[in-house]
Amino acid sequence: MSLPVSFSRLVSLLGKFPGVGEKTARRMVFYMLEQDPGWARSLSQAVFDLREEVRTCAFCGNITTEEICGICADTMRDRTKICVIETQEDCVAMEQSGVYGGLYHVLGGRCSPLEDQEVPAESLERLKNRIAELGVREVILALSPRIEGDMTAYMIQDALGSQLPAVKLSRLSYGLPVGGSIGYADRATLHVALEARREMDSGLFGDRL
Amino acid sequence: MSLPVSFSRLVSLLGKFPGVGEKTARRMVFYMLEQDPGWARSLSQAVFDLREEVRTCAFCGNITTEEICGICADTMRDRTKICVIETQEDCVAMEQSGVYGGLYHVLGGRCSPLEDQEVPAESLERLKNRIAELGVREVILALSPRIEGDMTAYMIQDALGSQLPAVKLSRLSYGLPVGGSIGYADRATLHVALEARREMDSGLFGDRL
Repeated sequence: MSLPVSFSRLVSLLGKFPGVGEKTARRMVFYMLEQDPGWARSLSQAVFDLREEVRTCAFCGNITTEEICGICADTMRDRTKICVIETQEDCVAMEQSGVYGGLYHVLGGRCSPLEDQEVPAESLERLKNRIAELGVREVILALSPRIEGDMTAYMIQDALGSQLPAVKLSRLSYGLPVGGSIGYADRATLHVALEARREMDSGLFGDRL
Repeated sequence: MSLPVSFSRLVSLLGKFPGVGEKTARRMVFYMLEQDPGWARSLSQAVFDLREEVRTCAFCGNITTEEICGICADTMRDRTKICVIETQEDCVAMEQSGVYGGLYHVLGGRCSPLEDQEVPAESLERLKNRIAELGVREVILALSPRIEGDMTAYMIQDALGSQLPAVKLSRLSYGLPVGGSIGYADRATLHVALEARREMDSGLFGDRL
C-alpha cells in the first residue's frame, strides 16, 4: 500500500518526537485527518506562536515570555537555595510537585561522553556568578538518577570549588519510587535504597524545603 | 510556575491526540523549542499539505491522493474478496502484515451505543453495492476483537441479508497473540483461544489468503 507523500512526511516528522513511535505518529495523522480544516490552522498558529513568544530566562534558563521568568522575579521565593536541573522540562515536574520554594538553574546539558554531550561551560559560569550575587547558601542537585547525572554532579562539585565550604551542596536521594513495589524494583534501586535507608524517627520523606 | 500561554495551548492541542498524554505533549513542545525555526515551518507546511493532498477513495474509503486508491485500482488484487475494517488505520496495519491480497471496505465507524457511535448507513449501502457489482465471493470481517466489533459483525450480517447464502461471510479468529505468553494472557482471550482450538494437522495459522 503506497501512502500519500504528505501523509508519510508528517508521520516521519511526528515520529521524531521523543516518546512518539511510528504507530503513534500514524495514529496522530489519522486524528488530524478527522479534524475540521480550522484545526490544522490553529495547530500551525500555535507552533508559530510558541517560537515567537517563548524565550529563555536570562538568569535561570527556564522558559518564559519576559526577560526574567516568573520564578526568578518572585520575591516570595527562597533566594538562598538554587536547585540545579538538566532541562527546562525538569522544572515543570519539580514545580508540579509543589515541594520546592527556591530558585532554579537549568544546566542545559549533562556530562555524557557516550551521547557526546557536556555541560555548557557558560551555564556553569553563570551558576557560580548567581551563587555569589544572590548569597546562595545551598545548591541542590536534581540531576537524572543515573551515571550521567552522577558525573554531572561531580563536575559541578569540581566547578564550584572554593565556593563550597560556605555553600552547602546536596543532591536528591536515591531510593524506591513512591507507589512502586519492592517486587518490581530493579537491583540497582534496591541497592541504593538499602544503602540510603533512614531511621524511622527522622521521618519517611525528610523535611519539606 | 506559570507557563507561557503559547506553550500551554500547544500542550493542550497535542495532548488531545490519541496515545499522547499531558507529559508526552509537554515533552513534544520542549522538543519543538529545541528545533531551528525552519522546523516549525516545515511542520506547519506538512499539516497543511496533508489536508490538501489526502482524500478518501470513492470505492473503499481508504486514504488516497487520487479519486480511486492504489488498492482498488490495482488489477492484480483479488477482487472476489473484500475485507471490512473499521478505520483507515486498520488498513495500514493489514497491508503491513502483507498477508492479504484482496480489496478493503472502510466502515468509518462501529456499532457502539456506549460511545454513541454507529456504522454509517451510507457505508453499509456502498458495501452491498460493491459486493453486487464486483461479484465478491467472500466478505472478511476484520473488526476490533471486543464486544463492539462483535455487534458490528452481527449488524453487517443482518445488513447483507439476502446476499449471504451466495457470499461467504467470515471473520478473523480470536486467540492468543503471536509472541505473547500464556501466563500473561487474560481470561477472556484464553477462553476464546480454547474454544477456537484447531486440530494440529490443519496448520497453526490456517491458509494464506
